[in-house]
Amino acid sequence: MEAQQQHQHPYYPQSSPMPHYQPSQLKMSESLLTVGGSVVGLSLFAAFLIGRAKTPLTCKDKFVTIWMMVCTGIHIVLEGYFVYNHRELAGMQTLGADLWREYSHSDSRYLTSDPFTVIMEGITAVCDGPFAALTVYGILTDSPVRYVAQLITSLMQLYGDVLYMLTNAFEGYAYTNPHPFYFYGYFVMMNLPWIVIPLYLIRDAWLNIYRGMLIAKRATTVAKKNQ
Amino acid sequence: MEAQQQHQHPYYPQSSPMPHYQPSQLKMSESLLTVGGSVVGLSLFAAFLIGRAKTPLTCKDKFVTIWMMVCTGIHIVLEGYFVYNHRELAGMQTLGADLWREYSHSDSRYLTSDPFTVIMEGITAVCDGPFAALTVYGILTDSPVRYVAQLITSLMQLYGDVLYMLTNAFEGYAYTNPHPFYFYGYFVMMNLPWIVIPLYLIRDAWLNIYRGMLIAKRATTVAKKNQ
Repeated sequence: MEAQQQHQHPYYPQSSPMPHYQPSQLKMSESLLTVGGSVVGLSLFAAFLIGRAKTPLTCKDKFVTIWMMVCTGIHIVLEGYFVYNHRELAGMQTLGADLWREYSHSDSRYLTSDPFTVIMEGITAVCDGPFAALTVYGILTDSPVRYVAQLITSLMQLYGDVLYMLTNAFEGYAYTNPHPFYFYGYFVMMNLPWIVIPLYLIRDAWLNIYRGMLIAKRATTVAKKNQ
Repeated sequence: MEAQQQHQHPYYPQSSPMPHYQPSQLKMSESLLTVGGSVVGLSLFAAFLIGRAKTPLTCKDKFVTIWMMVCTGIHIVLEGYFVYNHRELAGMQTLGADLWREYSHSDSRYLTSDPFTVIMEGITAVCDGPFAALTVYGILTDSPVRYVAQLITSLMQLYGDVLYMLTNAFEGYAYTNPHPFYFYGYFVMMNLPWIVIPLYLIRDAWLNIYRGMLIAKRATTVAKKNQ
């Protein structure tokens, strides 16, 4: 009975040990507004940089710039916050903890220091974040680094998210509140963008690198003949 | 007492439930000889293809061809075998099961259908294997696909192996027999190649793609001016 009380929390599976759990004190609407505001702010900052870019950008370039800027912020700040605080997150009274406690209805592994989740998010914060920023730099300066950075960022995002979703699926979504709001609204809808957009951007990078390498090969062959 | 007997096996942590476990019947020396023979066979096949290639190959190209050929075999056959049979592996009397039972002294997650291990190995078998084969094709035919395939293969190998090693480290190597033979000889030495070589090949692909994209950019600029 005592053990049961100690583990009382609203997450799935309900047998998950979460002794530090404390309910959120802040209003969820305010927390979500802060995240929404940050995403809008990052997008506006990207738009500002796009406006100042000296190289002509296509509609797709602009979309990728904004996407990668928002990813940089989410990976480094939001996911970095989780990795740094994962041990105490379930009981902390901060905006960041509130957000993760809310998201955790769709995946309680964020509140139990699940090894895979912590390591995967650590890689995301430390690698995906900076590579997303490098992609933004590559687009804005028309650097040859652009597509290789875009490929690395998107492939890592895709790999991490596929592993993340499938490990939960493998256990019959045991970590997810089965209510459609949490299952579809949170677990599916908040992860699907990091499957679909990376797939598109990997294909885009692949095609552009392929074309670039073909042009380079021909140019090198012509240069050798002219020697 | 009964429960304890049911779980008796030589793996770590010894509390790991492994009701299907049966010791190997075959001689380990024969099993290892078969794997060694297969790796030599794949290397010889790669060498045969290298000999028939119409494009001049550097020493590095030849090394990458052999490496990716061996990786193709290991990912699709050996790791594919694990993924296909993970539920019964601990008790199967086959060469493949023997090999995994032996390796599992350094990581028992292979015998308990650990979700992360099964999904990660599934991605490795289904994606890394074919992309490694595509890299071989790219090198032998001097195709523009070579470095992008090399980058994708190596990045996925690196990501998978880093996650794999760190999730075990995160739990204090609880899944590993602490004897140096298993910890260093198996866990470290059998995984380190898939950290070190992918890092080198990612750097190599990065540099070559960067140079290719730079040449392509210049060639395109010149072509536009000449119009």
